[in-house]
Amino acid sequence: MQTNKPITIALDAMGGDFGPQTVVPGAALALDEDSGLSFMFYGDEGRIKPVLEKHPALQRVSSIVHTDKYISGHDKPSSALRNGKGSSMRMAIEAVQEGKADAVVSGGNTGALMAMAMVVLRTLPGIHRPAIASVFPSLKGETVMLDLGANVLVDAETLVHFAVMGAMFAKARNGIKTPTVGLLNVGTEDTKGPDHVRAAASMLAGLKFPGKYQGFVEGTDITAGTIDVVVCDGYAGNIALKAAEGVGKMSVQFFKER
Amino acid sequence: MQTNKPITIALDAMGGDFGPQTVVPGAALALDEDSGLSFMFYGDEGRIKPVLEKHPALQRVSSIVHTDKYISGHDKPSSALRNGKGSSMRMAIEAVQEGKADAVVSGGNTGALMAMAMVVLRTLPGIHRPAIASVFPSLKGETVMLDLGANVLVDAETLVHFAVMGAMFAKARNGIKTPTVGLLNVGTEDTKGPDHVRAAASMLAGLKFPGKYQGFVEGTDITAGTIDVVVCDGYAGNIALKAAEGVGKMSVQFFKER
Repeated sequence: MQTNKPITIALDAMGGDFGPQTVVPGAALALDEDSGLSFMFYGDEGRIKPVLEKHPALQRVSSIVHTDKYISGHDKPSSALRNGKGSSMRMAIEAVQEGKADAVVSGGNTGALMAMAMVVLRTLPGIHRPAIASVFPSLKGETVMLDLGANVLVDAETLVHFAVMGAMFAKARNGIKTPTVGLLNVGTEDTKGPDHVRAAASMLAGLKFPGKYQGFVEGTDITAGTIDVVVCDGYAGNIALKAAEGVGKMSVQFFKER
Repeated sequence: MQTNKPITIALDAMGGDFGPQTVVPGAALALDEDSGLSFMFYGDEGRIKPVLEKHPALQRVSSIVHTDKYISGHDKPSSALRNGKGSSMRMAIEAVQEGKADAVVSGGNTGALMAMAMVVLRTLPGIHRPAIASVFPSLKGETVMLDLGANVLVDAETLVHFAVMGAMFAKARNGIKTPTVGLLNVGTEDTKGPDHVRAAASMLAGLKFPGKYQGFVEGTDITAGTIDVVVCDGYAGNIALKAAEGVGKMSVQFFKER
């Protein structure tokens, strides 16, 4: 892949279970795929530099911004917000706010990242809540799914916002001109499902937005390749994600034993 | 398996996509596993009898109750309730009410079956809503999960009822003395999840019931074998079930191609 213009990514080098040891090699892999990238590593320079020196091509397009402070996986979002100024995560987010970077990536504390990004970067105009999106493999390619747990239960309007964001994401990521969007439900008939899901369906049916609303989809559609974007609240989405993960693990185990 | 006393099962022979053609051989398989069973087939005698004659051992412990009427997969629960008197499904349910049978099984229209069973048999005292339970394979054996779609969103008290029913089911089915019960959530910390799930957790923590409440579990626990009974609302449960089914299908496809 080759992006049209150079993109700078701010990285929380201290995020995740292993910090720079995995974040730096991860950036090297990304650079292999897209030579138009450059990187800003936020975190402990003493730990980042030795790993970066093992990747000379990456080193040429990278800079390090040192800080001793970082958010741990156990910090609550509220305490990360109160006490996180000057942390690697917050500084990486601020790099986007200040226009030094185009995007920020952290493998650290999801709740803290969400809360800080929400406070520092805000949501787009008209969008009330952020969502966690991810990409599932499907029998025909990939399915974008959101929300996977940034929120639990949400109202109909928020589901509509997720549909708009999901369509934009599928467009940008997979180059799909008009992504098809489905609302996750217990059946495809109009009368099925919780009130807020049916209300969101009515709103989407009449809405002009970057995707094409296709109606309700079921859990099997996530991996069937029948739809480009699956929209749901974070409670159902997180449970579906982890149920899928569990079956994946069990399948691998099952086939190993054969 | 051998039950302690003979059990009579009322079967809706017209249920499912193929009617007697699959229901009768299904009963023969059940009899192979438990010689203490006997069966009452409700439906079109002209279609049931020829299949039953191919299974002499089954025929010896079976009777046929003829009716021309049956509920189709497309009938709405409300219309099945209004117009379903004398149908194979309704008559099979009534066999339990009248004490002629100990249990009823139908592979037909789930919504109609639920509605009719609710009206004819009622729920147990103190239980407001029925639930659909099933058994998932896990890395260590089996996990009972409910609700899988009989209801969509429910209140905290109903989740507690599901926990009680799920524990009883695991006890009866798998002979577990005190089944462990978990509430399906997006994380295991007390502060996580929707209000009604957290309220159910508080209620279960102080409740004496046939199981042992273990706290919140996540989607991965369904197949991990960490818990005997997983409790959730029908919206999340149905989505988890079908997401799991989709991943199962994709895994089989994936391993076939290797």
